[in-house]
Amino acid sequence: MDRRKFFRLLGVGGLLSLMKAKAQGSPWTEKTFETLTPLGTPLSEYGGRSPFEEGVVRYISPNLRTRHSGASFAPIGDLEGVITPNGLFFERHHAGVPQVDPEAYRLVIHGMVERPLIFTLEDLKRFPSVTRTYFIECAGNGQNGYRNPPDPSLTATRSRGLASNASWTGVPLALLLKEAGVKPGAKWLVPEGMDAAMYTRSIPLEKAMEDVLVAYAQNGEALRPEQGYPVRLVVPGWEGSIQVKWLRRILVTDLPAMAKDETSEYTDVMADGRVLAFTWIMEPQSIITSPSGLQQIKPGFHEIRGLAWSGYGRVTRVEISFDQGRTWRRATLEPPVERYAFVRFKMPWYWDGKEVVLWSRAWDEAGNTQPTREEFFRRWGRNNRYHYNAIQAWRIQGDGQVVNGDQPLGGQAFGPAGGCGGEVLDV
Amino acid sequence: MDRRKFFRLLGVGGLLSLMKAKAQGSPWTEKTFETLTPLGTPLSEYGGRSPFEEGVVRYISPNLRTRHSGASFAPIGDLEGVITPNGLFFERHHAGVPQVDPEAYRLVIHGMVERPLIFTLEDLKRFPSVTRTYFIECAGNGQNGYRNPPDPSLTATRSRGLASNASWTGVPLALLLKEAGVKPGAKWLVPEGMDAAMYTRSIPLEKAMEDVLVAYAQNGEALRPEQGYPVRLVVPGWEGSIQVKWLRRILVTDLPAMAKDETSEYTDVMADGRVLAFTWIMEPQSIITSPSGLQQIKPGFHEIRGLAWSGYGRVTRVEISFDQGRTWRRATLEPPVERYAFVRFKMPWYWDGKEVVLWSRAWDEAGNTQPTREEFFRRWGRNNRYHYNAIQAWRIQGDGQVVNGDQPLGGQAFGPAGGCGGEVLDV
Repeated sequence: MDRRKFFRLLGVGGLLSLMKAKAQGSPWTEKTFETLTPLGTPLSEYGGRSPFEEGVVRYISPNLRTRHSGASFAPIGDLEGVITPNGLFFERHHAGVPQVDPEAYRLVIHGMVERPLIFTLEDLKRFPSVTRTYFIECAGNGQNGYRNPPDPSLTATRSRGLASNASWTGVPLALLLKEAGVKPGAKWLVPEGMDAAMYTRSIPLEKAMEDVLVAYAQNGEALRPEQGYPVRLVVPGWEGSIQVKWLRRILVTDLPAMAKDETSEYTDVMADGRVLAFTWIMEPQSIITSPSGLQQIKPGFHEIRGLAWSGYGRVTRVEISFDQGRTWRRATLEPPVERYAFVRFKMPWYWDGKEVVLWSRAWDEAGNTQPTREEFFRRWGRNNRYHYNAIQAWRIQGDGQVVNGDQPLGGQAFGPAGGCGGEVLDV
Repeated sequence: MDRRKFFRLLGVGGLLSLMKAKAQGSPWTEKTFETLTPLGTPLSEYGGRSPFEEGVVRYISPNLRTRHSGASFAPIGDLEGVITPNGLFFERHHAGVPQVDPEAYRLVIHGMVERPLIFTLEDLKRFPSVTRTYFIECAGNGQNGYRNPPDPSLTATRSRGLASNASWTGVPLALLLKEAGVKPGAKWLVPEGMDAAMYTRSIPLEKAMEDVLVAYAQNGEALRPEQGYPVRLVVPGWEGSIQVKWLRRILVTDLPAMAKDETSEYTDVMADGRVLAFTWIMEPQSIITSPSGLQQIKPGFHEIRGLAWSGYGRVTRVEISFDQGRTWRRATLEPPVERYAFVRFKMPWYWDGKEVVLWSRAWDEAGNTQPTREEFFRRWGRNNRYHYNAIQAWRIQGDGQVVNGDQPLGGQAFGPAGGCGGEVLDV
């Protein structure tokens, strides 16, 4: 370590006083620790959380009509770093979570191939493997933003918690397709899940050859049942709904399936009523997780923290505005900044106790950024319920209470009715 | 994607035939999937593992005299990638796992400081934070290697599973010390845990100013109780035993404490009977996890996979030998390769069904590598039970059974009697 830096660091600091924290310079004596601590609990085979942390859970909307076809939100307002723990990774199911026996599991590749193949789980694990950190985001993430006036009780979790980030291990789908031998003229893959919905989508062959994984592990251990145990697709940067879970077959074909899961759902209704099919790539997103909706803060020093990501690749910068977008300051991105993965951004900040509104926006390597709400609705209209990525504003009130800072739009009230977010407003 | 690469990838492959796998070209009809899958389980607030994965657990030696002072091994032979899931992160306790109320939690910094300070957990979280991926390795990892003749039933888990890797979030200890104002002449920190052992160690001030974290989160969520909930030290690259868990105070002083935990334990007994104190930095390690001890493999294609790390910084390369070290081939390191973190290495391999012994060795950015067993014992003697990092050999027998490939040393039988590994041979 550089000696000058070392001795500079040794000097008396002032951050704690900037926090106006209670705990500084408190009276303390050696007696504080005289009480003997009792013997703790023994070694265990698989660890669980502290009972004091059991309040940190996925958010399930109380309005949900069924918990078998809905979504639970990762509590991103309570998490640190960029890895979403497996137990808190967001969920989206269409017919509940099937229980799959890994011994009985088979993956079929058939259709326009030289030789149809059936793989066991053991076969898949013998192939050359890849581990990569990728976010998965529901196409309906941010759906609460399709409300006017905005939801005053919004939290970071309910704003953007239908996204999570994990280290995935699997075999490149391109390798399996090479084994099967894709026939000339084939252009599409139709993966199907083994849930009761027989969830089915269409993926262009070229994306599959690029970077799609047939994944069997998540953050080191086997996939969790909610995430597709024993095998799912991971389609980097694309909407979560195409990353088929409990994957049982892939049909190689020359046309998309136009399955129920890509026609009745996961299509974007434009302002003029026309429908956009196949909106696969997730736009840049950012969300300040601290301070964020329904948190309570005190005057003094804070580190603004948040998450950013983009389906176009690497996040290149995140900016924060304290004046509704007139000026922007660049946040620090914590390394390693990986493609198609969550990035943690941070900015030191001194809150003087006056009301202020915080905005954040992410930029990606393709030059995209997030629009304001006004820009978003001007471009896309109010009929859609997917792919919302407008800037999320948080208002810090004078009393330190943080609330949704999004401004009401002109015109009539509107809002989502169900969908991936599962937060039913009007039944 | 490059078009030539794309069409090359589309060609019929041959990897599956190299695997001699059962499943290729099996008869399959559309009827295979005609059975309807029943509705699955609903959304949940905190997810658990598939019941089919419940056999993947930490290894606790059946010889252990107490489960309150011992170790459990991360099942590295069953894990993928580099993140150790929180439930499977190795444990080492000296008096069990205390249950700590985060509201009542306090961290005291006192001794040779301008002003003693008491921090609440909330205070700590308000400081500028850092998230980094670091391995933690017990000083006793590899202890099973101190046996002659070698243990024939050794697995990857029991060979090197007293190491794990996680993404840690916390506040740099340097910042907290700056708040307290370290007085001239101070050279050491004495951190103390709030377990019943009042576990105590000494850390040079300079290391603390460099990169030590006061950590409160692990892989995104709060620390697990076994890992020091709510607050522990993370001391990058140094032996796990110095990374004090359930941290309740740090005494700033001019001399090391010479505490029981750094004198009666965690000192290295040399060949001549003299004792090395303060062997902090962990030497380079590597372990082939697949194929590894007690696994059973079949002839054909395999991907050799393993983990490597070093307390001297970045792993620069990992080599594999198939001829007892006469020649070495370089494995692929999977990015991102971070300092003081696990690295996953891989090598494609065709097993012809003949007996063969696999060796691996890691090299780090300081130019260190792993010795053979002969070199290790020649240098360090047979009296020690810590800091074993000799090359681990795996023998693939003609029947595909993988066993410990380490060779017996000349002279008398010897072996560990207890210690961190918790595998008591002679009571």
